[in-house]
Amino acid sequence: MQVNVIFQPTGYRGKICSGKTILEACQKFGINLESPCGGNGTCGKCKVKLEKILCNKESDFSNSSISPITEKEREILTKEEQLQNFRLACCTKITEDMVIFVPEKSEKGKQRILETSGSKLFHLNPGVKKYYIELKSPTLEDCRDDFTRVKDALLHKYRNLEKHISMDYKVMQTLSSLLRKEKYKITVTLWMDKEIISVEPGFNENIYGVAMDVGTTTIAAALCDLSSGEVITQTSSLNPQIIYGEDILSRISHCSINKNGLEEMHSLIIKEINKLLEELAASINRNVNQIYDMVIVFNTAMHHIALNINPEYLGQSPFTPVISQGLNIKARELDINICKGAYMYSLPIEGGFVGSDNVSVLISQEIHKQDKMLMIIDIGTNGEIDFGNREGVFSTSCATGPALEGAQMKYGMRAVTGAIERVKINSLSLEADFKVIGEDKWNNTAEVGGVKGICGSGIIDAVAEMYKNSIIGKDGTFNKKIVCPRIRRDEEGRMEYVLVWRRHTSIGEDISITQKDVRAVQLAKSALYAGAKMLMKKRNVDSVEGVILAGAFGSYINKENALVIGLFPDCDLNNVVVVGNAAGEGAKIALLSTDKRTEAEEVAKDVQFMECAAEKDFEMEFYNAMNFPHSEDEFPHIKHILDSISK
Amino acid sequence: MQVNVIFQPTGYRGKICSGKTILEACQKFGINLESPCGGNGTCGKCKVKLEKILCNKESDFSNSSISPITEKEREILTKEEQLQNFRLACCTKITEDMVIFVPEKSEKGKQRILETSGSKLFHLNPGVKKYYIELKSPTLEDCRDDFTRVKDALLHKYRNLEKHISMDYKVMQTLSSLLRKEKYKITVTLWMDKEIISVEPGFNENIYGVAMDVGTTTIAAALCDLSSGEVITQTSSLNPQIIYGEDILSRISHCSINKNGLEEMHSLIIKEINKLLEELAASINRNVNQIYDMVIVFNTAMHHIALNINPEYLGQSPFTPVISQGLNIKARELDINICKGAYMYSLPIEGGFVGSDNVSVLISQEIHKQDKMLMIIDIGTNGEIDFGNREGVFSTSCATGPALEGAQMKYGMRAVTGAIERVKINSLSLEADFKVIGEDKWNNTAEVGGVKGICGSGIIDAVAEMYKNSIIGKDGTFNKKIVCPRIRRDEEGRMEYVLVWRRHTSIGEDISITQKDVRAVQLAKSALYAGAKMLMKKRNVDSVEGVILAGAFGSYINKENALVIGLFPDCDLNNVVVVGNAAGEGAKIALLSTDKRTEAEEVAKDVQFMECAAEKDFEMEFYNAMNFPHSEDEFPHIKHILDSISK
Repeated sequence: MQVNVIFQPTGYRGKICSGKTILEACQKFGINLESPCGGNGTCGKCKVKLEKILCNKESDFSNSSISPITEKEREILTKEEQLQNFRLACCTKITEDMVIFVPEKSEKGKQRILETSGSKLFHLNPGVKKYYIELKSPTLEDCRDDFTRVKDALLHKYRNLEKHISMDYKVMQTLSSLLRKEKYKITVTLWMDKEIISVEPGFNENIYGVAMDVGTTTIAAALCDLSSGEVITQTSSLNPQIIYGEDILSRISHCSINKNGLEEMHSLIIKEINKLLEELAASINRNVNQIYDMVIVFNTAMHHIALNINPEYLGQSPFTPVISQGLNIKARELDINICKGAYMYSLPIEGGFVGSDNVSVLISQEIHKQDKMLMIIDIGTNGEIDFGNREGVFSTSCATGPALEGAQMKYGMRAVTGAIERVKINSLSLEADFKVIGEDKWNNTAEVGGVKGICGSGIIDAVAEMYKNSIIGKDGTFNKKIVCPRIRRDEEGRMEYVLVWRRHTSIGEDISITQKDVRAVQLAKSALYAGAKMLMKKRNVDSVEGVILAGAFGSYINKENALVIGLFPDCDLNNVVVVGNAAGEGAKIALLSTDKRTEAEEVAKDVQFMECAAEKDFEMEFYNAMNFPHSEDEFPHIKHILDSISK
Repeated sequence: MQVNVIFQPTGYRGKICSGKTILEACQKFGINLESPCGGNGTCGKCKVKLEKILCNKESDFSNSSISPITEKEREILTKEEQLQNFRLACCTKITEDMVIFVPEKSEKGKQRILETSGSKLFHLNPGVKKYYIELKSPTLEDCRDDFTRVKDALLHKYRNLEKHISMDYKVMQTLSSLLRKEKYKITVTLWMDKEIISVEPGFNENIYGVAMDVGTTTIAAALCDLSSGEVITQTSSLNPQIIYGEDILSRISHCSINKNGLEEMHSLIIKEINKLLEELAASINRNVNQIYDMVIVFNTAMHHIALNINPEYLGQSPFTPVISQGLNIKARELDINICKGAYMYSLPIEGGFVGSDNVSVLISQEIHKQDKMLMIIDIGTNGEIDFGNREGVFSTSCATGPALEGAQMKYGMRAVTGAIERVKINSLSLEADFKVIGEDKWNNTAEVGGVKGICGSGIIDAVAEMYKNSIIGKDGTFNKKIVCPRIRRDEEGRMEYVLVWRRHTSIGEDISITQKDVRAVQLAKSALYAGAKMLMKKRNVDSVEGVILAGAFGSYINKENALVIGLFPDCDLNNVVVVGNAAGEGAKIALLSTDKRTEAEEVAKDVQFMECAAEKDFEMEFYNAMNFPHSEDEFPHIKHILDSISK
């Protein structure tokens, strides 16, 4: 007997033999229902709603001849769902003319679309996927080997897979006992749909990956659910290589000078990476071997050192990297402890000074897809700038030093609890109001407590406010004529501005901004500004249509103050956005989308790298950018502020 | 000015600008001259002979305007060659009309053809090849990374290479310093023309590989020069796993019963493999890291154990292997110490009982390419038989035990110096003549010295001679009626025939063949015979057109005696050949020819495996084959011998 079925919301309809399951009907009528367990009633993904029995006005399913709810369904469907006539398509037989509603969530093929922090959309398409299969046990007549049985079962059930599937050597070692112990019901993890990197007992859909941004100073790591694209938890730590020097060049030189220098630093970073992986896995009560994929972005020096590749020639002109293209390396080759067969993917690097972290920033911000001429300024221990649009992007790297990250300043610190992240100076009293990370309110006479130092965004604010209030001049020099207890000479006779009195700090010292600190900010910002100008020349434009500020700032940066000190060329502040750690964001995106990895490989090839040192005008630009905001360039968008200073 | 050039022996001719080198002329006229160093005057491969200056009857080259011999040529060409007007084509400029002779050796493209011990031909086409390149040093303008520079230089110079070339991760680690130290002149080793597995200083054409046959009892290894196909040196040793049992099943059961059993046996065999590799490399004063490729053949159990893959289910019906296909595994993953980036290739296995060693035998003997119905009998601790022709080959494995290898016999030993390899018994005196490996002459009253025991071929001879002289009967039982000092009871009252008196041995004991030894030979030969008969039934034939005897015999086996004891079905002895270790031979062939690897993958798929135990007639066949030569089958080709016995 044939029965009529109508599917909603598509409206697909047709006749099918009575007694077939809803899943079979879906397959017949081209509705792509999720069924990773292969119609086994175990994954619960093929939920559909019985809408209506056509000959029955009441649609009272309890009286219909449709197969009754099974034990498996009772386990998986909530009470609520059962009341609403939700069923598993694989367990339910159609025996009458009826209407079935297919929720979007149960439909496959409709790729899940995710959104970056910069509101860019991408499809969820991770590098590893899980497939549940059941094999027939071998007999004397069917003497295919275990691997071939697994491969054939995969290809038979998932017909869109490519035929050339291999198996990681480590998986082979224990395959036979696992298959037999699990009665030939297993979940296979495929890397790039071509290599079996894990085989697990029974049905197991948990699939995790980790994205890391390994910077000179900080390592940020995020654990993601690769089936939903969700970021489950994040963590970070200091790069332990810091004992070998704060900047890239001292790290490289440690490798060149000491016989085991590279090996030492490599081991140190791998140990730290493993610590973070343990921490992430533990936070969701999982083991690290349930992390099946990993993406890391680095600057070029960190890339080489972490991969145990000699970085010596990155520190010498012409700054040649050993390899630029993206690399898939078995994590175990690097002693990274995740799933035994898993790969570590490192995004391509651009060149000697522009690493995969910048490629990562680009795929997260996508300026290479825009019409507008946009500039990305990514502030880390090195500053990287990208400028352009869909017709071409240039990038460069500027030796900013770590001042804007809060390092190497007298009271500088990372953007963590206790750091001043915002500063305002009262123009009459020259007293400072400030806001500390971890507290909600502004202070000037703060309760004794948390204040420990000042982070990047606070430093930009402080210097800008000092300039706006003429505590320092256009050239950054302290105005020695002002009489105010906050402006004083330190024990060595150098000028400083006291931001917080000792009694309000937790470090037992007055927190101040010194003349040396101001100079460090000047050097950093002029390096960025000069780099930005050189890139604009490359594209023959004299203004930018938007600026994206990325990097290890605090959660907050005052865009106006950043412009007041001349961190970047004049721009409408409405078109300036702050995006935080865009490199880390890009790493997550690459973890969740192999299409974005492909995009990264293309971007890395297409972006043109400009070496500042090789540009003849660079030194002049650098010199001109030392002043606040600049010796020569106009800043019409903050003219009112600048005018009020000169008054 | 244009000059005329004629090349011999091809007769190619044409005009070329005066001043061009002979190499350039060859390229122009389509003569494929060897020039691995790229015309750099360093490899010495492009030797040609100046034959004649056309306008000059004397052909006195010293008076010609042809560019004089260079320093490089003086270094490379012998005095003799210089006198004969040999020159390097890359160093010699053509300035007059002339005739040039190109020796075959200098011509490329004519693939080198090698011959197997069975007179089969194959092309030399190893899995690894070396390429010499010179790179330009990087500049600020040309900032390609080191890997890309290497790849681009390779592709530019060797235009027939595929574009997708990758680099082993380990090679990257030290690439940058090597390039700079060597002034960008390097030799690159490519695996399968697609992965760079080694980069070495300057021009280095030495390229070695090792082929191994890892058997249950013996490991045989050969070091080959991959540029000539020559086997440079060979060695062998006992499989150290023997402490866990002499046969496959006890090894497998050691793995199943003991938690670390597999790991123990795996480590043991890898240690032994590394010892052999060290020995081979040392014998030509090289380091193991100059071994760039490796092929190993195994039986299925050795395959799994050596690769650290759980072999448990090979020992239980239906005897399923974990993986059958050929495997390329980085040698370092297996802790095999050869060139860091090199692979170990293991030939495909056929099934639970027929390993890659049998596939190896097939590609060396090529019965799958013949019209005649041929049988291969490969005698090891397990006996493997293949039977068929180009229309199809069947194979099976027979549990012979190690008797025919000389093991588990009272005085049995491997075919090494001191082993009796041939035996004749005088029909009147029943005295034995014998020949010992390492000695030229036959003995009966041997000088006291070398005799230590008896190897496989000697055992077959001894048992056949005992049967021919009625010392044992058709059923293998000793004839107790003969009175002769050599026929006696041992200390436990069992019959034995003394082959060599104690005074002629170096072991202080009489060397004898016991009733138990004869039984072991009967069991072994009837297993082989029954297996052979089952295969003949599969192909519906009742005779074989030829027999190939392979395996760990001595260098000699008496074919007639083998037939007398019924080791294989009746066959014209002119069509029986003895080929020695054909599995080891196949391993060498696979090492030297990737085409033969491809053939192996096909053969492994095409050959049909017959499981003796699953055939209903097997036990009856086995029982009937216990007699000498057989209970029922006729042996017309040795009728005269058999008739003389029954007399």
